[in-house]
Amino acid sequence: MLVIKIGGGDAIGAGGYANFAADLAELNRPAVIVHGGNAEFSRLSRELGMPPRMITSASGRVTRYTDAATIDVMLMAYAGKVNKRLVATLQAAGVNAVGLSAIDGRIARGRRKPVLRGIEDGKTKVLRDDHAGTLEGVEPRLIRLLLDAGYLPVLTPPALGEEGVPINVDGDKLALELAIALGADGLLFFSDTPGLLANRDDERSLIREIDAGAPEAALAAAAGRMTVKVEAALGAIARGVGQVVFADGRAEHPVQRALAGEGTVVRAHAGATQLVTGTLGVPATPEAHG
Amino acid sequence: MLVIKIGGGDAIGAGGYANFAADLAELNRPAVIVHGGNAEFSRLSRELGMPPRMITSASGRVTRYTDAATIDVMLMAYAGKVNKRLVATLQAAGVNAVGLSAIDGRIARGRRKPVLRGIEDGKTKVLRDDHAGTLEGVEPRLIRLLLDAGYLPVLTPPALGEEGVPINVDGDKLALELAIALGADGLLFFSDTPGLLANRDDERSLIREIDAGAPEAALAAAAGRMTVKVEAALGAIARGVGQVVFADGRAEHPVQRALAGEGTVVRAHAGATQLVTGTLGVPATPEAHG
Repeated sequence: MLVIKIGGGDAIGAGGYANFAADLAELNRPAVIVHGGNAEFSRLSRELGMPPRMITSASGRVTRYTDAATIDVMLMAYAGKVNKRLVATLQAAGVNAVGLSAIDGRIARGRRKPVLRGIEDGKTKVLRDDHAGTLEGVEPRLIRLLLDAGYLPVLTPPALGEEGVPINVDGDKLALELAIALGADGLLFFSDTPGLLANRDDERSLIREIDAGAPEAALAAAAGRMTVKVEAALGAIARGVGQVVFADGRAEHPVQRALAGEGTVVRAHAGATQLVTGTLGVPATPEAHG
Repeated sequence: MLVIKIGGGDAIGAGGYANFAADLAELNRPAVIVHGGNAEFSRLSRELGMPPRMITSASGRVTRYTDAATIDVMLMAYAGKVNKRLVATLQAAGVNAVGLSAIDGRIARGRRKPVLRGIEDGKTKVLRDDHAGTLEGVEPRLIRLLLDAGYLPVLTPPALGEEGVPINVDGDKLALELAIALGADGLLFFSDTPGLLANRDDERSLIREIDAGAPEAALAAAAGRMTVKVEAALGAIARGVGQVVFADGRAEHPVQRALAGEGTVVRAHAGATQLVTGTLGVPATPEAHG
């Protein structure tokens, strides 16, 4: 079982969805898609006169401040446009996809952080009424029901908070927790880069492999949102997902290529191989890991 | 099994959702919600500089012209904000709701009308690239799967057209076809009126009962969108749905009241009672029918 995270960057648009749909129509193993929607969210926010407010924490993490009105914009971008356009593209390719937010069927619970502290436009800010939060847990019953019935679930944040408040949780963490809960043997993170880059401005600086037992260099190379991705990947390996790859979501045959090891492959540390379970759908070729 | 259509008017907002959620938490029979989102759709369209274009056909039906860009706005309003806010409200009341568009799992297929003809702002128009269309059929497999597993499905247009094009289909017809396909014994249409009115500007002119065998007076009273509703109700009765009610979606306990016969009750014609199947969850009280 494969969990496929498709990033919400602008470079993976309608054409990109069709590439994924073509691959998934040929894939002979169950799969779940988790997708983002950041580019649509930002564009819609600006069009509605609510430009994104980005807060950088002391540790350098960048979070989008999401008040109650902004969460409606998020629902519209992620659960409305991106989710349904992706599902319609999959359906057109013959894949019987079902789009869901993590609110539906209580797939994921989130908890609000009462206060968001950090730097916005060079100034220290303490912001309340933030609907961004922490992923507290996933309940994969609905996803399993759909997989067992032959559907391809297509899942997006937000998660469900207390009293029915939607919570903006990180899509990479959602994909990670879902992969663990479903016992997935593969977790693929697609974004608008060839993988993890040593130099974020140079696509030729692709890091072809990360040793989960010695990830320091990779974590040092990862900046901003990539830090969350690398941590999610390391967590997945530690918790038994056999194959974790950061791959290019802009190419043709993105899933086939990632399964063949194109991108950044996160490898279990030699001392941790007893945690690796499951079999790989497509064996990674040794030369692809160069 | 009950199919509940909740209209997309502004008067049934967040408070209205909570009233439905409270009733559904107490309901001891399976139910499916089909909802609209017209008010949100219109507001979002205006905010994005794409005000709704309404076309009136020769027969007096009003249709919203929906080009490709507008269908994205529809997805955002219906499948994003309205669907997920309703699901979150139901979840907060303890109802394990799952929100879907009719694209998901191919629940409903639609076909585009190649050309939309009619009057817009007093002028005759012939518009192409319309994504409004006709509901061609429903496939209730996914809805049944969810009902059997104890979930409450919350369904919204659009439907799935050829080549993955979302099609704006009528929500009342979607509710009707789903009720038939599921063998529902009740179909409740909630909107921002007490039911079908003899005089649309006077809420005291409620028509308490329509005889499906002699609907002429009701059809004459129905104007604009209400015509589609009355036709859907008559179709439901003719095809075996035992209880069809037009009811007020703005009141507390909307579902309880409708099941008790408050609103406009559509009755099978004496000569057609052999078509009526199923049992009612709550017997209608004779006095409620005046």
